[in-house]
Amino acid sequence: MSATTALLTDHYELTMLQAALARGTAGRRSVFEVFARRLPGGRRYGVVGGTGRLLDAIERFSFDDDALVFLEQQNVVDGATLAWLSDYRFSGDVWGYGEGETYFPNSPLLVVESTFAEAVVLETLALSVLNFDSAVATAASRMTTAAGARPCIEMGSRRTHEQAAVAAARAAYIAGFTTTSNLEAGRTYGVPTAGTSAHSFTLLHDTERDAFTAQVDSLGKGTTLLVDTYDVDEAVRLGVEIAGPELGAVRLDSGDLLSLATEVRALLDSLGARDTRIVVTSDLDEHAIAALAAAPVDAYGVGTRLVTGSGSPTAGMVYKLVAREDDDGTMVSVEKKSPDKISHGGRKFALRRRNRRGVAEAEVVGVGRQPVDDGNDRPLLIPLVRGGETIGREPLTSARERHERSRAELPPTALQLSRGEPAIPTRWEDRS
Amino acid sequence: MSATTALLTDHYELTMLQAALARGTAGRRSVFEVFARRLPGGRRYGVVGGTGRLLDAIERFSFDDDALVFLEQQNVVDGATLAWLSDYRFSGDVWGYGEGETYFPNSPLLVVESTFAEAVVLETLALSVLNFDSAVATAASRMTTAAGARPCIEMGSRRTHEQAAVAAARAAYIAGFTTTSNLEAGRTYGVPTAGTSAHSFTLLHDTERDAFTAQVDSLGKGTTLLVDTYDVDEAVRLGVEIAGPELGAVRLDSGDLLSLATEVRALLDSLGARDTRIVVTSDLDEHAIAALAAAPVDAYGVGTRLVTGSGSPTAGMVYKLVAREDDDGTMVSVEKKSPDKISHGGRKFALRRRNRRGVAEAEVVGVGRQPVDDGNDRPLLIPLVRGGETIGREPLTSARERHERSRAELPPTALQLSRGEPAIPTRWEDRS
Repeated sequence: MSATTALLTDHYELTMLQAALARGTAGRRSVFEVFARRLPGGRRYGVVGGTGRLLDAIERFSFDDDALVFLEQQNVVDGATLAWLSDYRFSGDVWGYGEGETYFPNSPLLVVESTFAEAVVLETLALSVLNFDSAVATAASRMTTAAGARPCIEMGSRRTHEQAAVAAARAAYIAGFTTTSNLEAGRTYGVPTAGTSAHSFTLLHDTERDAFTAQVDSLGKGTTLLVDTYDVDEAVRLGVEIAGPELGAVRLDSGDLLSLATEVRALLDSLGARDTRIVVTSDLDEHAIAALAAAPVDAYGVGTRLVTGSGSPTAGMVYKLVAREDDDGTMVSVEKKSPDKISHGGRKFALRRRNRRGVAEAEVVGVGRQPVDDGNDRPLLIPLVRGGETIGREPLTSARERHERSRAELPPTALQLSRGEPAIPTRWEDRS
Repeated sequence: MSATTALLTDHYELTMLQAALARGTAGRRSVFEVFARRLPGGRRYGVVGGTGRLLDAIERFSFDDDALVFLEQQNVVDGATLAWLSDYRFSGDVWGYGEGETYFPNSPLLVVESTFAEAVVLETLALSVLNFDSAVATAASRMTTAAGARPCIEMGSRRTHEQAAVAAARAAYIAGFTTTSNLEAGRTYGVPTAGTSAHSFTLLHDTERDAFTAQVDSLGKGTTLLVDTYDVDEAVRLGVEIAGPELGAVRLDSGDLLSLATEVRALLDSLGARDTRIVVTSDLDEHAIAALAAAPVDAYGVGTRLVTGSGSPTAGMVYKLVAREDDDGTMVSVEKKSPDKISHGGRKFALRRRNRRGVAEAEVVGVGRQPVDDGNDRPLLIPLVRGGETIGREPLTSARERHERSRAELPPTALQLSRGEPAIPTRWEDRS
């Protein structure tokens, strides 16, 4: 794996660059915009994820010798283009919705302003990062909503690409998950890590007693014992016998979790282990979590459905040229006419319109200028890169806090898990 | 991003390791197995993807100073465990289905034999790689089946994590795609790359004529022009006017592709451009491809649905301990009893049972020994790692050829796109 991100790029971006360089149009000032035409899966809102990762990736976007040799040997582009690429560093400006921010159809999520040449080659990288991370963050936000005050643990690494797993853990944390099983997410991004135990550990030992004793002796009484390898009732009794009432938690990974949790809670209480928590796992999603609200569950471990976006594994964002310089140096709006994929030309600005009580009422998108603030509104685009220099870097906890604030100001319908319309409408304010 | 893969691992693997080291059970000879309880989405067969990537990842699985410092500072494991990890190199044996091979429920896709300690820490990495790559390879195989002799172009990088995109391009190639848009997949794995043009390129120029002229002048008459930015009919005429009948191809990315392709074919023919091909894109999946079989389409560009597994973004494989050493050194089969997640204990072997005409009839899984060959059968597990040394590395084209052969020997029902039962049953041959 290479340290440069420059070849995480579609072939056509470089051939378009070659043609534009030859034609003399590559240097035209251009504005590209990332937006989503719709929210996937009848969601009520989306959550921006990946911004911080994208800023890192843009900084590492340069064509090293390996990359240039590959492009030359495969005849991807001509010598003039290779020469241009060898000097590539993004020198333009980027604005975007803050990471963790909620978004709606046509929200201008990222605005990249530079020459056509500099901006066109970032298309695939920007979309890969934002589409994956936002899909996971959006699913995660619904799960933490459903879980209420109960913590959600991210444990889906094994169900997605090994590097995507790291990004998924990060995105889930932004949207309110408390911990992840993924150690690389701990090292790279500081996401708190946690773990329980697997069936293999119990099966390694001659008896469940041996296994539990080994785990408690080594990891302490606060550990979480997996109690469904053989018989749940016996395992819970054994766990409390070995660790005492200080046993941290038991994990249930199969069966009818609703009734099982109720039975296990009663059993733990009867054994005096009133503080021993119950962690449930096993193909949970936001709907399963909501269905367990009445059960005596203390934490949810979520895997597959989280890292695959709970039915919507990509956010469906696109990267479109919306304005570019004309021959005489003025900027003109551009948009294609394909009947089923209308784009809105022009540089965008955006506000979250809020009523006097601070409740969000609309996504107001201004074309060509900032919409007028009604008095309670909140501007949504923040500067991320200026003249090629990253200025939007922030701690991951800032994105997490932003998400919590942004979700809290949405109207109550936003938190419905059923399919429906976006929680607030998107309104256009055209230059006129 | 780190060169080591050792932290692409779940927290609990290292804490289980710590407890097993302390208990003296970490060195027990163990057999872990990767299998899928079912095929997702009513598929008729699955396709193994990721084997080659996994072999690379296991070789790079070692705990460097950075990793050890992280684990120590976060108190993930104790000093004895850190010392053990600092020397980690996998020294065991691995067998697996060849990459590109078709598989069925309970096929023993990967068998890892080593000490518990060495094998347990590979769980997440092995599953991440195999689950993602196999999900994409399985979807890709259905798409190339639907496309028949027409080439499929992978262009989904922007719809998945940027590194997952590289793996997806590789998996698609194994399952019969001819090219990818992803340049890193070209550099790292030698997958042929290709590209067309985007709407932004047309919009950058003052007129469509300027854009097409720039593209043809720079990239040659064999290029593919995107013709749906404004009016398709006009764009096709313009393309042929500029490039002549040698125009390579036109791309349609919106609208009713069935009728549009028919109209464009007639128009191209009427303009004398009989050899100009028609490439279609726009949210294609295997069903949309099949529906276009009657249309005069020459190639399919597939993006979102490919990299997200066409509705099944993960293959759902698990990594389970199936046998381990007893106190007296004999190997014993182990399995958990969780009612809804039964595992089959014991070391597995597997054959593809074929009739005299070479048509697959069953997946025969032997427990504890190789099933008896009926005379036309094909063994499925091949050695990948022996004593820690990788011996199963092969060119990517070998996996591609294996897939083609394996799919060709399945019964015709395997190629149905509708939901249904696996194309062949899985039969157990227990030691008896």
